[in-house]
Amino acid sequence: MEKSHDLPQVLLLKPPLDMELFGQDRFSSDKFRFLKAWESPLPLDQFLQAHAQSVQAILVSGGIPVTAETIRLLPALKMLMTTGAGLNHIDMAECRRRGIAVANAGSVPSEDVADLAVGLLIDVLRKVTASDRYVRRGLWITNGDFTLGSKVGGKRVGIVGLGNIGSLVAKRLEAFGCCISYNSRKQKPSVSYPFYSNVRELAANSDVLIICCGLTDQTHHMINKEVLSALGKEGVIVNIGRGAIIDEQELVRCLVHGEIKGAGLDVFEKEPDVPKELFKLDNVVLSPHCANLTGETFNDRQKYVVANLEAFFSNKPLLSTVVDD
Amino acid sequence: MEKSHDLPQVLLLKPPLDMELFGQDRFSSDKFRFLKAWESPLPLDQFLQAHAQSVQAILVSGGIPVTAETIRLLPALKMLMTTGAGLNHIDMAECRRRGIAVANAGSVPSEDVADLAVGLLIDVLRKVTASDRYVRRGLWITNGDFTLGSKVGGKRVGIVGLGNIGSLVAKRLEAFGCCISYNSRKQKPSVSYPFYSNVRELAANSDVLIICCGLTDQTHHMINKEVLSALGKEGVIVNIGRGAIIDEQELVRCLVHGEIKGAGLDVFEKEPDVPKELFKLDNVVLSPHCANLTGETFNDRQKYVVANLEAFFSNKPLLSTVVDD
Repeated sequence: MEKSHDLPQVLLLKPPLDMELFGQDRFSSDKFRFLKAWESPLPLDQFLQAHAQSVQAILVSGGIPVTAETIRLLPALKMLMTTGAGLNHIDMAECRRRGIAVANAGSVPSEDVADLAVGLLIDVLRKVTASDRYVRRGLWITNGDFTLGSKVGGKRVGIVGLGNIGSLVAKRLEAFGCCISYNSRKQKPSVSYPFYSNVRELAANSDVLIICCGLTDQTHHMINKEVLSALGKEGVIVNIGRGAIIDEQELVRCLVHGEIKGAGLDVFEKEPDVPKELFKLDNVVLSPHCANLTGETFNDRQKYVVANLEAFFSNKPLLSTVVDD
Repeated sequence: MEKSHDLPQVLLLKPPLDMELFGQDRFSSDKFRFLKAWESPLPLDQFLQAHAQSVQAILVSGGIPVTAETIRLLPALKMLMTTGAGLNHIDMAECRRRGIAVANAGSVPSEDVADLAVGLLIDVLRKVTASDRYVRRGLWITNGDFTLGSKVGGKRVGIVGLGNIGSLVAKRLEAFGCCISYNSRKQKPSVSYPFYSNVRELAANSDVLIICCGLTDQTHHMINKEVLSALGKEGVIVNIGRGAIIDEQELVRCLVHGEIKGAGLDVFEKEPDVPKELFKLDNVVLSPHCANLTGETFNDRQKYVVANLEAFFSNKPLLSTVVDD
């Protein structure tokens, strides 16, 4: 075994969420060691310049931006690993230009994310969170039965982005008797669900929209006033993608004025800031971006991250890289 | 068409929940009319004696008891219709002795009940209601990420009572990658899930118990200290059956002391009274007995109730009667 200081270094700009929660030991390896930018007294740019020739790999998590400026300060960088699914914190154009391999947690957290999407949908339709508040406030005794919910089965569910996560959401909701259709960049030849090339048309033909796509320049504010209006007064929206895929200000307006029926939101435009107007509403469920936060998936993900970095330093193929088409 | 006062009468002891919510018109028929005990100034026993020879059918909903005393005052009674699924408010022994046909809403509300069971399970495992409270209290900003949830997939789910509802719960949870086994009065030859004749053994081999059976003398407090202890510290319980199937005092003690991990409860022993100790807990979801309360199912149920009563008065076979074995 090489001595620890001979090992190649994986740059950490800030502590990734997984390490903050579980400590660094679970990420240790005899193939690499971590270089922690935040432990240095140097300003970040000087720190990066000092290690410019040695840093071949970076590890980050969702909230940690990797800008073009950072990448330009690291001429030896060849691999960027992010522990989440989203890529919107990474300057993908610069990575492509430089030929840097970008890897995310792949499909490891997809089941968890799909589970929460279904949980949020059942919750909004069947008013689980709202009725729990009702019971805890003692209102069941004083005010009698809670208001009726809406049935899950038979709902026309439009899935926006039928990748890993979207497909798992569809599989689950089929078991509830929902009717699935979808929108995505291209029609999927292997899928029999009806395809809508236009998200407004999907919304017009759906009782529920579930946002499962990534955030890109193309999907930013894709769910706008027009789409929400097509979804309509009886429509429900669930977002487990990224907050900025929806025009949040418009969504809040629609929810407050009853122009759509309800929403289950795990993501927001300015996390951890959540629009205060939503706090008073019974027809929304607010989840603090935790669609992939289960103990089981953290375990799997930690193993996957280490295995991917070890593959990189052993010149083996990565377990997965991001296809950014 | 016969004149209204010539029509046979359906006795209502109290307004059934469905009528309270939607009015009586939706239950009207040209085959029968309603006889409303609560509108008479007479005490109930005298009122029943006055109509003893004419009442052939009664319509009730879940919270309205039909005792042996009531049944004995109605010698002409031949049919009893209840709008819910449960039968614990009806003296079934007396009905059997007298050969009175008992009909419930059959499988009409089963999907709704199964949907809520799954919703409560996802909620407890993924902490949906607890994290919604966290966001609404502004704690995401001040305290950072919420605690990790537990993955739905891979959980060993023990279903107690594999009838209509239990089977629909199993079908849904298979789509999430759960491993199903069950306990019921008898093993079902058509079912391939592992069967446990003993509910304590089922609990010992499960991460989750979902109570889907009816309340009878045999199932009263069936989920006792021994069963909860077999389920264990990491175990979760969901109850969409009836409150008294679980020894509620023991359940509360286990939840307060962390002897089981969490619970999703739609039913309680003394509804609408919910043990106050539960109000402070983040590991429980409290639902005000609304597993079958959706607008869609109320519609279907109302049609089903009217059709069943019309079948009775037309001497046609009932759409369903309760098999009480």
